[in-house]
This record gives sequence, C-alpha cells and structure tokens, in this order.
Amino acid sequence: MPDTSPLPVSLPPGLLGALTAVLGPKGVITDPADLAPWTTDWRGLYQGATPCLLRPANTNELSAVVRLLARAGVPMVPQGGNTSMVGGGAPDESGRQVILSLTRMNRIRDLDPIDMTMTAEAGVILKSAQDAAAAAGALFPLSLGAEGSATIGGVLATNAGGNTTVRYGNARELMLGIEAVLPDGQVFSGLRRLRKDNTGYALKHLFVGAEGTLGIITAATLRLFPRARVQCVALAAVASEDAALSLFRRFRDRDDTAVRAFEYMSGTGIDIVLRQIDGASLPVAERADHYCLIDLASSRPDADLQGLLEAVLEAALEAGEVVDAAIAQSEAQAQAIWRLREEHPEAQKREGASVKSDVSVPVSKVPELIRRSSDALRALIPGSRPVPFGHMGDGNIHMNLEQPEGMDPAAFLARGHDIMDTVNEVVRDLEGSFSAEHGIGRLKTDMMDSWRGGAELDAMRRIKAALDPQGLMNPGKVLPG
Amino acid sequence: MPDTSPLPVSLPPGLLGALTAVLGPKGVITDPADLAPWTTDWRGLYQGATPCLLRPANTNELSAVVRLLARAGVPMVPQGGNTSMVGGGAPDESGRQVILSLTRMNRIRDLDPIDMTMTAEAGVILKSAQDAAAAAGALFPLSLGAEGSATIGGVLATNAGGNTTVRYGNARELMLGIEAVLPDGQVFSGLRRLRKDNTGYALKHLFVGAEGTLGIITAATLRLFPRARVQCVALAAVASEDAALSLFRRFRDRDDTAVRAFEYMSGTGIDIVLRQIDGASLPVAERADHYCLIDLASSRPDADLQGLLEAVLEAALEAGEVVDAAIAQSEAQAQAIWRLREEHPEAQKREGASVKSDVSVPVSKVPELIRRSSDALRALIPGSRPVPFGHMGDGNIHMNLEQPEGMDPAAFLARGHDIMDTVNEVVRDLEGSFSAEHGIGRLKTDMMDSWRGGAELDAMRRIKAALDPQGLMNPGKVLPG
Repeated sequence: MPDTSPLPVSLPPGLLGALTAVLGPKGVITDPADLAPWTTDWRGLYQGATPCLLRPANTNELSAVVRLLARAGVPMVPQGGNTSMVGGGAPDESGRQVILSLTRMNRIRDLDPIDMTMTAEAGVILKSAQDAAAAAGALFPLSLGAEGSATIGGVLATNAGGNTTVRYGNARELMLGIEAVLPDGQVFSGLRRLRKDNTGYALKHLFVGAEGTLGIITAATLRLFPRARVQCVALAAVASEDAALSLFRRFRDRDDTAVRAFEYMSGTGIDIVLRQIDGASLPVAERADHYCLIDLASSRPDADLQGLLEAVLEAALEAGEVVDAAIAQSEAQAQAIWRLREEHPEAQKREGASVKSDVSVPVSKVPELIRRSSDALRALIPGSRPVPFGHMGDGNIHMNLEQPEGMDPAAFLARGHDIMDTVNEVVRDLEGSFSAEHGIGRLKTDMMDSWRGGAELDAMRRIKAALDPQGLMNPGKVLPG
Repeated sequence: MPDTSPLPVSLPPGLLGALTAVLGPKGVITDPADLAPWTTDWRGLYQGATPCLLRPANTNELSAVVRLLARAGVPMVPQGGNTSMVGGGAPDESGRQVILSLTRMNRIRDLDPIDMTMTAEAGVILKSAQDAAAAAGALFPLSLGAEGSATIGGVLATNAGGNTTVRYGNARELMLGIEAVLPDGQVFSGLRRLRKDNTGYALKHLFVGAEGTLGIITAATLRLFPRARVQCVALAAVASEDAALSLFRRFRDRDDTAVRAFEYMSGTGIDIVLRQIDGASLPVAERADHYCLIDLASSRPDADLQGLLEAVLEAALEAGEVVDAAIAQSEAQAQAIWRLREEHPEAQKREGASVKSDVSVPVSKVPELIRRSSDALRALIPGSRPVPFGHMGDGNIHMNLEQPEGMDPAAFLARGHDIMDTVNEVVRDLEGSFSAEHGIGRLKTDMMDSWRGGAELDAMRRIKAALDPQGLMNPGKVLPG
C-alpha cells in the first residue's frame, strides 16, 4: 500500500507505511486537526504534540503495532477516554510520542451470570460496562464522575476508586484477569475468571495502577455482584468532622454490607453548589458546616434500609452528632441529593479558580485531616476557602481550595504547588497518601522521590527496566525522570 | 564474640560469627537435632538439609542477616509455620540453603477498631491473628485447616485461600500494606493502612504469592471486618453436582453477603470420614452421593439466617435439588457438620494412600470438573476412589484420589504424576488453574512451563532477575530451573 499521507518528521522513514499496512488507513490518524483533542489532557494542564494516533481494532493489531514501534525505538502513550486528572493519558511536547488509542477495542467479549464475571476490552466505556452488567441482572459497581467517558483500560491502568470503594473496593479489587500487550509486543494472556489461582507472580496486579508504563492493558475479566434490589439515600447535616466519622461508624456497625457510599461535604462546598448550580437545593431546613451523604443498598429483597436509616439517624440525633437529616422518598430526591455532591467540581469552576487535591488518610484520621489542612490553607492564603469533600468511608478526601473572593485567579493558581505541599505536609503527618485514586501521571512524578524514595522506588525502577528496557511505554509518567 | 559452634562446611569462613554477632547465640541454630524438624516439609515430600537456621527478632535483624548472606552469596529459605502443601518452606538437599525462620517476629504491632486494620508481624500464627481481632470485637476472616500453625507471613507469601474466600477473598484481598526485606537487605516499608493509595507499582501485590522468591515479608497491615453476630450452619444432601451449584446460586441470589462458606463433599468422602473418624455422624437420614455444607453469617444483629436457610432449602427440596437437609440447632451441631468436612484429609490418610490435588475452575464449571475428572481417574486406575471436596463457592475443588481397596500403597503413589496430569487435563479444558490456593512451591515448578510459558513466564523471570539478580531467595521454588 503506497504511503500517501504527509510523513511527520519525527517518525523513522517507512514506519508509517508499515503501521498503515497493519491498521488500514482508518486506523492511522495524522491530520493535525483530528489529533488536537487527544494531545492535551482533560484538565488542560499540558499541551502536547504527536506525530500520529493509532487505532487498533483488536489485540493482535495492537501487538503488531507495538512490535513495530519498539523496533523503531518510538515512544508510545496508551489512551482510553483521556479523562486523567493528572495528565496521564496525553503525549508530551516533544512531538515524538505516538498515541495508541484503545477506543476501537470496545467489545464485551463475555458475560457470565453464573460465574458473575464479565470480560471487557480496554476501550469499553465504564458506563457501558455498568449497563451491560445491569442488562444481565447484575451489578458492576465501579462508579465515578467520568464514567461516561473513562474506559475499562483506563480505570484499571490507574486503579480508579470512586464512590463505592467503601463497599466494593477499587478497580483492582474488581479485576480477576488481565490481557496486556508487553513493551516488546508479546501478549500476556491472563484473562482467567478464577477466584483462586496461585501460579507465580501477580503480573495482573502489576499492570493495574502502572498507568501504561509497563505494558498496555487490552482486556480484563471483571467481577460482577448481585444487583441492588433496595436502596435508600439520605443527607445529614452533622455537628462536626468527628460527628461525620461517628455517623459512618454507626452505619458500618449496623450493616457494613449496606453502605454503598458515605460521602463528606463541607458547608462551604454546599454553599457554592447552591449558589452556582441551577436547581440545586438543600433538603434539610438549616445550613450547616458539615454534611454527610449516606447511600445504602442491598441485594436482599427484604432489606429494611429505610428502617436502618431512620434508626441510625435517630440515635445520632439524640447523641447530638446529627443536626438535621432528610431521607429521599423517591429516585428523583435521591438524585437531587447526589447532585449536591457530584456538582462540586463544576460549581467550584464557576465560582472562580481552584486547586484540586486527591489525598487519603486512615479513616480514623479524616476529621483531623480536614481540620488541620483547612487551617493550614487559610493561613497560607488568607481569605481562601477550603472545600473538602469526598469519600469519608474509604479515607479519600479531595482537599480542594477555592480562591479568595476578588483575588486574581492567575495569582491564586500560581500558588498551586504551595497549596498541594501544604495539604501534603498534613497528610504525611497522618500517615496518608499524596495520591489516593487519581494516580501519578505526569503531575505528581516529582513527588515520588520524597514519598516513595529508597528501597521502594528502587524496586519500581528495576521492574520498569526489566519489562521496558528501552523506556518506550508512556515515558515521563509515574516514575520521576 | 568468639565463634565456638562447629562451623558447617558449607558456610564461608567467618559468616557464622558475623551472623551470631547480629542475632546472638540463641538466634543461630546449628545443632542437627534442633534443625531436623525444619528441613523437611509438612507433608514429608522432601528431605532437605541446612547449615543453620536463623531466628531474627525483628526486621532490622533480618535486614542485617540478609545483607550478610547476600554478600556471601548464600541462598536463603524463609520459613513460617512450615505448613506448605507443596514443599514451599523447606530447604533443598544441597545443604547450602540457610533457613530464615520468622517465628520470633510474632508481635501484633497495632490494631485499630476504627480503621478496622491490624498490623501483624510475619511470625504471628493465623489463629492468634484471628483471636486478636476477636478480642477487639472484630473479625479477621481468613480461615484454613492449618491455621493453628501457619503464619501471617506464610499465608501472604502463598496467598492462602481457605473456606471464606467466597465471602472475604484470599489473603491478598485482606492485605492493605506490606513490609518486606528485599534480596539485598533493603527494607520495603509499605505498611500503609489506606483503602486508596495509587502511587506507583503495586509492589505489595508482587510479594503476595511470590513465596519468598522476591524478598521476605516481615509484617502486614490486614483488613478487619465487623464480627458475625448471627450464624447458621446446615448440611444438605443434594441430587447431583449440578444441584449443588444450583443450591449455591439460590443462596447467593438471596444474600451473597451472608454466604461465609459453601463447601462440596462427595458421598465417597463422607463414607470414608464416617468409617475412619471416631464420633463422626451424619445429621441427615439417608446416605447420598453429594453433599453441601452451607455456612451463613452476618454482622446484622437482626439477620434471620435460620429463616433464610429454611426458605432456600425448602425451595430447593421442592425443585428436587435437595434430597434431605439438617440445620444445626447449636454450636456443637454446627461444629459436628464442619468436622465432616475438616476431617477429610485425616480420614483419607487412615483409609490408605491418596494423592492430593488443588485445582480451580470457573464456578459454573465445577460440576463438569467433578464429573469428568472422577470418570477419568476411575478409568486411569480401576477401583480408585475419587474424593472431590472443597470450596464450591469459589471454584476450588480438591480432586483427591483414594487408592483402590487392597492395592499396594506404594504402587498407587507411584502413579501420583499420572493422577495429577489426568486431573489437570480436565482443568485445562475447563479454563481452570493447576494450583488454586496452595501455590507452586517445589512440587509444581515443572508445570509452570506448560501452563504459564511464553510471555507470562518470561515476564516473571525478568522480574525475578531484576529484584534478585543472584537468585538467592528461596531457590528452586515457583520458577522452573
């Protein structure tokens, strides 16, 4: 096949033709206008460049393409929905890194309601995976804000968490098997749908969370669960951060299997949502400084979740922990409560400049995390507004900071690293992590040395060198340069 | 300190003195009489030899010792309770491999009932870990036959499973953090008690299941769960293997969170237990060819498990799946039912020679596994008695084979590899695994090539070479020579 497209200067001669021979003309995108959306990350933190984007239709094509690129020494960036919060899925500015898009590999290969497993290709959108499970009367529980765009390959490569980790675990814990293309083009065929399989090193776990730096996940066998037959959502205004934790413990103690999500929100955050989001409204009578969203669900047809909610909230009211509470009486009311939580990022964006964070601490230390880092942030930038929210039940709080009213947004954003450092100092003291569910990507590589340096980073580098000796897989991500 | 003990010929000069300087005289065992129990594996498959057994009291001592041994090029075998079913914890016959016993490192460093975590050193006996959790009003759910001897380090190094995997997962899924000594003596400090922490490669998962070949686990942070407040055990005689699976699905569908264990037993196995074990008795009226043990538990104080059991068993009786059933009305009756299952290995031993197996298939294929491999085994050795039993709920069946009555035990045992191959041929056809919960150890290394060869074994070898370039950590285990 003659190679008629303009040859990007940074690809070795003949390579584009060889790639086109494997993928066909539709599988090789080189037009700069078509490439533009994929060379920058979702948050717009980085503006990269690429000679081309490749769209393999199946694992064999991807394997052949990786083999060609590896032989030519061309760096590769795997990409799913490109929704990374840390610049993990976009190429750098060199213009040398080829994008390998998995979006055409979007088949659900298998769904077994007896084994309660589903095998999905990397490009399957998370929402589609949820829908496929639901259509079979089952539940794929991973749930997060970007689920309409994020792909199965991406959520596994980053070990995404989200709202339901407290009950079902992270992406990793929902994974039974992995298929991946290794840096030399070999295919690791690990799609085993077994609960028990102790046969050597846990390679599948190595690819999960490695953000494409050790190979490219092409498909995964995922665990399904019985669908929820009963569900119940409530919003509680609580007296303090400690009261929020105490309320979580009350529910966990009564029925840990029913707590599908337990989210914390600050009064500041709720105020911003109510101000910025059309139709948002508070279902409780009075404004408070702290709120909890409680989402209970059970597959037991006879589960009395409404009774459980009422009993626990009443006990917490009597103990002075809960100030006021509203239990959703319809699906619409439940969605309205969830909306208060889900609209936090959009509301913050409309309110002004903000700096995001994604940290975790042991669950017992969440109140201290919120208090201490809020104080430290207000001291760092007087008038700034801490907006802590997130997954109290699993210890993962987004300690976001909204700019002071009237401050120049650019001046505020210029303090971004100071702000992250301020939060991280508290997190370190509380034995937490500087990246809970978003991963490292490009944004946080420079934190790896101080947090994971020594034996741990040394071992990671050895593994990287062993599996990707040329350093061609998603360079500049995860490991510091 | 002068080195007065007799110097084993196989240790370099001066090394024993240096080791004694680190560990003190009580930490270095060289008397052959004291060494004998630790140089053979629990099943007596192998008779090894060692120059000495080292007993570090803490991670620093182990680190220093590994550093000394690594510099001297001396191979090391980590050992916990030495209960491996596959010869994983004992030295080989060379007399060169030093045993590193973790049994003195048996502190529970931390137990937090709010975070629901426990940090235990590698030498803590599994039963002691369960007891410590129970004393704090919580549950550490890992449970297996050898729990009175097996250690936390060992169950993690082998990713042990056991009876409760169907509900709580394997050892891996109960682990939040790992501390390990690397092959060069560096300490990997990964004891983070976080549900979410995406900061680089999943090293902790690499050590779990690596059987000490990549480093030595010295402590782990483990997940705890709310204790069971209600429990209920039943034995059901069922019509067929398919009926057993159907019964499991009925319970899972009604309340998957209540199924703590779901075990299958054959009529042959129950007959042998009733014949060989004093006091064993069948709680149902008539003998059957297939039985299920159902163990339900819940932390919900108001859970009506007795009602659930009765409703499901009644529906299954009406459908002709269950022939007869007995629900334990006391703790003693529950234990008597469990005893029928737990005494399978002892009863088989008394009955004559038997060959063990530990395989898994997708849950949906368990009936076919039992039928087809039983047929194949009877065809291989006429008169032999298949005794399939185990964890139906997670797909892990021990397809054990009892010798024909009257056959010479040695002649039967000589067919051990043929027997394992016969089962494995069926397992491979059903997309299962040749080692479900026992690991590879020394017994199954020669199966790795045909089951995991190609890209997968290649990647494992690269990782091994990267982390243990001298090949000193538990040599001869996991990876084929």
